[in-house]
Amino acid sequence: MSNFELISSISKKTNSKIVFLVVDGLGGLLHHEIGMTELEAASIPNLDRLARTGTTGLTIPVEHGVTPGSGPGHLALFGYDPFKYQIGRGILEALGLEMQFSENSIAGRGNYCLLDAEGKIKDRRAGRLSTEQNIELTEALNDIAIDGATINIKAGKEHRVAVVFNPTSGSKFSDEITDSDPQQTNVPPNQVKAITKNASETASVVQAFLEKANAILGRSSIANGIILRGFSSKPKIPQMKKIYKLNPVCIASYPMYKGLSQMLGMSIAPTGDTFGDQLATLKDQWGNHDFFFVHYKPTDSAGEDGNFTEKVNALENLDQQLPEILDLDPDVLVVAGDHSTPSVLAGHSWHPVPFLIHSAMNQSGETEKFTEREARKGALGTIQATDLMALALAHSGKLEKFGA
Amino acid sequence: MSNFELISSISKKTNSKIVFLVVDGLGGLLHHEIGMTELEAASIPNLDRLARTGTTGLTIPVEHGVTPGSGPGHLALFGYDPFKYQIGRGILEALGLEMQFSENSIAGRGNYCLLDAEGKIKDRRAGRLSTEQNIELTEALNDIAIDGATINIKAGKEHRVAVVFNPTSGSKFSDEITDSDPQQTNVPPNQVKAITKNASETASVVQAFLEKANAILGRSSIANGIILRGFSSKPKIPQMKKIYKLNPVCIASYPMYKGLSQMLGMSIAPTGDTFGDQLATLKDQWGNHDFFFVHYKPTDSAGEDGNFTEKVNALENLDQQLPEILDLDPDVLVVAGDHSTPSVLAGHSWHPVPFLIHSAMNQSGETEKFTEREARKGALGTIQATDLMALALAHSGKLEKFGA
Repeated sequence: MSNFELISSISKKTNSKIVFLVVDGLGGLLHHEIGMTELEAASIPNLDRLARTGTTGLTIPVEHGVTPGSGPGHLALFGYDPFKYQIGRGILEALGLEMQFSENSIAGRGNYCLLDAEGKIKDRRAGRLSTEQNIELTEALNDIAIDGATINIKAGKEHRVAVVFNPTSGSKFSDEITDSDPQQTNVPPNQVKAITKNASETASVVQAFLEKANAILGRSSIANGIILRGFSSKPKIPQMKKIYKLNPVCIASYPMYKGLSQMLGMSIAPTGDTFGDQLATLKDQWGNHDFFFVHYKPTDSAGEDGNFTEKVNALENLDQQLPEILDLDPDVLVVAGDHSTPSVLAGHSWHPVPFLIHSAMNQSGETEKFTEREARKGALGTIQATDLMALALAHSGKLEKFGA
Repeated sequence: MSNFELISSISKKTNSKIVFLVVDGLGGLLHHEIGMTELEAASIPNLDRLARTGTTGLTIPVEHGVTPGSGPGHLALFGYDPFKYQIGRGILEALGLEMQFSENSIAGRGNYCLLDAEGKIKDRRAGRLSTEQNIELTEALNDIAIDGATINIKAGKEHRVAVVFNPTSGSKFSDEITDSDPQQTNVPPNQVKAITKNASETASVVQAFLEKANAILGRSSIANGIILRGFSSKPKIPQMKKIYKLNPVCIASYPMYKGLSQMLGMSIAPTGDTFGDQLATLKDQWGNHDFFFVHYKPTDSAGEDGNFTEKVNALENLDQQLPEILDLDPDVLVVAGDHSTPSVLAGHSWHPVPFLIHSAMNQSGETEKFTEREARKGALGTIQATDLMALALAHSGKLEKFGA
């Protein structure tokens, strides 16, 4: 939809509750030998039943042929035009790690890496050092002082960090600076440079930080360098509370999805690492919200690993736990994906993704199972992912009539 | 798609090769007695197999209900918004005849015609005189001198000519002038008039040319007049090399398709009159390019003639020669049409046109044959023709992920 003017003019607050379950990388492709997609191979009786009795179709994540990253894929599902609203990776990472920043800050995401004797990158991920080792290294960098900035660095998982640069004066740091991470090995890290004239101060600050950080890390044998990329500022994004009149909450384990949700104005419910933890959180939060974004990651991870069987398992595990959501009796349950992650491609893809909407206002099609092929026979056909949010609201009685 | 900013930001150069086979006027309608469309009646085992194992759907040429000419039909297939980018017929014709012109020139397309004693048009095509007669007449007109212009006229096929008007001063000729061709008989040719004020000099030049030309032609009994229409300037069109990072080539026999392709920045491979010649050219050029636009004309010609059987034959002939393309093992083979030319209508139509994409990243549907009805069961459903190009690029691995 992405027509926020229209939708905010017709959205209304009600008591109905929407569970918006995003199965990351849901869509798949035929396995060349098995002749089935992951969804077709999986035993998922609950999803099949919901597809049979609900409203189904497929979503085009952003545009035909365009493979989205997780950011644009999720923005579209929440009704945001992913071209109009772009969130930088640095900011997403920092948000996911619950770091503070202002409109004037910039954030970058980084890796600890291994440099050889000549200063060239040997391993961009320093052998995927442990999160514990990462925390230890990061502690040593938190005291770095650079004129004109306060700098916070926080450990993510394994080799990942986020760094937030806050200007000490009232001025604003610019995100128009180049990456230090060359995204390849056997070359030294790049010098951070200003892309536009007014970014020169920011570039100097970031470069000065990197030099001090690398000097400190030089003593370590685990990871003797740090590289940063994806510098970004906080974008201005309309809030879901305002557009949709929702009180939404995000129940996700992975930092990036929490960060993105926070940008859209969702509350972030603390939860654990497993989907079981997330479902327990959903139950706990049931009385507090009317929109529950529940994120399921294992499908995407298995697809990214090119592991067909593991993706089938991830779908089956999800299906087995689905009754816990249904027991809460949501007015609307949406099951959708931010993009396809076919295990035969071992990565994200552009292929349309099946979805289902289960509510008391289903328009059934002829879908027999929850698969790519069957979803094509659904009531809604192939739609833009940005249309799904308005459909979720409509099916929960949260949209007034347009015009008299 | 038509979102060139997006697509140029994610397109990348790779070694993969795309064959983009445009079957002109591909789509058809049910023959009233036979109860089948041309595609349904044809024996096309190769296309059927590709449709069964590939990704299929239908394209809306420009908009529901809108019948495109060949220009907009092809522009859309190459990803260009046919409303935003319009190429005048005169320019297309001149390009197809390999005539030179500048940004300041205008071109018109014309017919030799037969005028009666009162100067009224008796036959707009002068009995479709032979190309040889045309060449002879045209020679006699090439010495016409008009102040302020150099004028080139070139013979096309049968009664057709193109005329290019180049200003001798640094000024620019305007295409906002009226046609001299009234597109009906029993009326005299129209006076060429300026539609806008700054076109008055151009109108005078063109009218002066026509008067001198008609005076010269008056001596001929084969064709004693010339009428012009479709005056147009060279439009500014983004180049495929830049947007898509392709090195594209056009392999077409008919001038108009070559002209259009050249406007988009394709190389034009010299080839012969038959599809066999075109396939030989495709093989010759295989090492030189990564995108091969191959144009197949006989389907459209048969449809235009209202000849169902001949269109079926044209489809069967194409199918029999298809293995020559498949033997080259392209990473992606697209088979699409610029519009429908149903033989029951004996002309172009707006009806959605079946397409197939064959690659290693197929998302199969339930299409059993390559027909209008079966393509509806395909993975992609009914899409805009402008989306096809991004899909072709995606299926050949030529598009990076959008966003993180």
